[in-house]
Amino acid sequence: MGEIGAKRWNFGANEVVERSSSLSIREYLNTLISNLDEGGTRPVIALGHGDPSPFPRFSTDPSAVKAICDAVSSTKFNNYSSASGIPVARKAVAEYLSRDLSYQISPNDVHITSGCLQAIEILISALANPGANILLPRPTYPMYDSRASFSQLEVRYFDLLPENGWDVDLDAVEALADDKTVAIVVVNPCNPCGNVFSRQHLQKIAETACKLGILLIADEVYDHYAFGDKPFVSMAEFAEIVPVVLLGAISKRWFVPGWRLGWMVTLDPHCIMKDSGFVQSLTNVINISTDAVTFIQGAIPEILGNTKEEFFSVKLEKMRECAEICYEEIMKIPCITCPSKPEGSMFTMVKLNLSLLEDISDDLDFCCKLAKEESLIILPGQAVGLKNWLRITFAIELDLLIDGFSRLKNFSQRHSKKKP
Amino acid sequence: MGEIGAKRWNFGANEVVERSSSLSIREYLNTLISNLDEGGTRPVIALGHGDPSPFPRFSTDPSAVKAICDAVSSTKFNNYSSASGIPVARKAVAEYLSRDLSYQISPNDVHITSGCLQAIEILISALANPGANILLPRPTYPMYDSRASFSQLEVRYFDLLPENGWDVDLDAVEALADDKTVAIVVVNPCNPCGNVFSRQHLQKIAETACKLGILLIADEVYDHYAFGDKPFVSMAEFAEIVPVVLLGAISKRWFVPGWRLGWMVTLDPHCIMKDSGFVQSLTNVINISTDAVTFIQGAIPEILGNTKEEFFSVKLEKMRECAEICYEEIMKIPCITCPSKPEGSMFTMVKLNLSLLEDISDDLDFCCKLAKEESLIILPGQAVGLKNWLRITFAIELDLLIDGFSRLKNFSQRHSKKKP
Repeated sequence: MGEIGAKRWNFGANEVVERSSSLSIREYLNTLISNLDEGGTRPVIALGHGDPSPFPRFSTDPSAVKAICDAVSSTKFNNYSSASGIPVARKAVAEYLSRDLSYQISPNDVHITSGCLQAIEILISALANPGANILLPRPTYPMYDSRASFSQLEVRYFDLLPENGWDVDLDAVEALADDKTVAIVVVNPCNPCGNVFSRQHLQKIAETACKLGILLIADEVYDHYAFGDKPFVSMAEFAEIVPVVLLGAISKRWFVPGWRLGWMVTLDPHCIMKDSGFVQSLTNVINISTDAVTFIQGAIPEILGNTKEEFFSVKLEKMRECAEICYEEIMKIPCITCPSKPEGSMFTMVKLNLSLLEDISDDLDFCCKLAKEESLIILPGQAVGLKNWLRITFAIELDLLIDGFSRLKNFSQRHSKKKP
Repeated sequence: MGEIGAKRWNFGANEVVERSSSLSIREYLNTLISNLDEGGTRPVIALGHGDPSPFPRFSTDPSAVKAICDAVSSTKFNNYSSASGIPVARKAVAEYLSRDLSYQISPNDVHITSGCLQAIEILISALANPGANILLPRPTYPMYDSRASFSQLEVRYFDLLPENGWDVDLDAVEALADDKTVAIVVVNPCNPCGNVFSRQHLQKIAETACKLGILLIADEVYDHYAFGDKPFVSMAEFAEIVPVVLLGAISKRWFVPGWRLGWMVTLDPHCIMKDSGFVQSLTNVINISTDAVTFIQGAIPEILGNTKEEFFSVKLEKMRECAEICYEEIMKIPCITCPSKPEGSMFTMVKLNLSLLEDISDDLDFCCKLAKEESLIILPGQAVGLKNWLRITFAIELDLLIDGFSRLKNFSQRHSKKKP
């Protein structure tokens, strides 16, 4: 056995996989965490990723917890799920989404997934025909980029325009697309920008996708997180114009991202996705993929059907309050500017003015030193495709948010260029 | 909008995906289910797939259900999981697996997955470097084949030998492998054959893998399901000989496949997987994949640590009883023969003697007509790579098992060639 380490082994690193993962938020967060000062006495404040579930301010509804206990205790849901989800769950999601729509979604078009992420995994791999490309926003939710790279699907970026409230640069979309472009991704309410698209703008996006002959992927995992002037409108309203694949989950609205219950809905009134064979391809990937937990699916009718409206309105107001404070605090710090007051999701993007800082080379350097010196985690903009910006989440406990900004302010002052 | 159906759309079917799914058990079961007689008055008996969880005989331990309720009610586990699982779950799995081993597994080597299937998804995609190939058993658990095809990893089959109690044909393994062979898969206790490998045979497999310089993937999702003469021995015992990736789950031993809690353990005492970069590639795929539900992970220390030994021994005895009856009933039916009495897992393979039957063209035809005429679902052997065999599960309620075999007997008699 002595020579086991010296002999030749056939397996090793996978380059495609390495490229894909280097794009992930987890990879950036790991880098920041490794920069934390181990001797630091203050608690770490995490404004780097969107998971408010540990905070009492954003605790889930007890009725949802009870629904889970009831479902698992019934012992009716210990078995394997059917591939697209158990019928009661598909029906419940169809009814939930149809409440706010001008038409009824069919349960047959609903596919239950292990969180919104698995919907992205399945969708991207079904789209990845050789030579195909996909249009992604910049800034982006980088899981799309990672999964596209993993599936060897070429990515082309169109800009979200900070000077236009982060609207899609539709001219750029048209210029980027060719006959190998299969889809465009739109995240609304927007992670990472914190904007909400107007009904008019959504319609224009749909019309552009129709003109280009491409699928419209509408990531609405932050559905209903609209606390500014513009109401949340689902892209489902425009499925008459262009085939839409709608992605969602209970993760954000119920503050339970760890429950891993999402959905992928094919909205295809003209049977374009179906006739092209794409729906069958999606189903085929689903057939060979892991499923959402059966008893959580079993609890979904109760969770989606019977959570009181008051729960949502109270939590939305709390989120609005956090967003307001975040925006006010940003304005007090000279080296960052927020082009657009957050009105949705749990994030905002701010631009870093490096010319006001000394000894900071870029956004990643800023965030690494911030982690080290202040035990504060903020995501560098390059993780979402915008170098020298920052993505900040405001979805945490208020005192932590205020403490976090106080640390950010101290850090910024300490690293400011001294006036001559 | 009138011309929406007539215009050119860029997206469509994905050929790679279509090839992959056509191999899946779900696809075969769907075909059989579509053959069921809708006017049939008898309940359908499903001997086609291994999910005993709906049957009172194989109900899970109430303490496991309580552990889930406690974990979700604590509200400490609503958040996103860390990529390889939360630390308490990784530690609990390491301790659970180490109980029966001659050494201690490190929690750092344990990666929690959404069922064993997701472990297969992650592992196969990390192994799929261009030009690589993998060795799979025939008969097989076809999810390996599907995922390899999906990841464009070439598959080469070695036989399990029915005349040798389904042992691996090690000469064939050596003949098949070349310097692009990255791994071999061994399922023990074996799905679909129902055999258990001896310690000596496991060691020979490990030595062969070492000689060939390939990774040994040990699928032990049916761990401890050994009710014949041979005890279950984990391939983990041979990690000194060859790097082993061990796959497992709570699905089978606790009868909760719908809970989607599995693991992938890298056993690498000589740091071969680590130094080659393969462990990093695995971690990278995990970073961009959905996670097991956090509160189910939170319940794992209680479930793995405190389920009473009596629960397992009682259930194992019930499984043995089912296997005995299954084997006895098989021997009463002339057109099928079982080369090896089942001694593990929840399945057995039987050979179909078509020369004794009239109007049956092959195993699929047999199973389709059986579904239609008798409302009995049995998996055709071609679904697991052995044409004109059948895979039968015995893990159901006793009266249903007996009723199922009575239907199989009637069907076989009805389709027997009449003596001249």
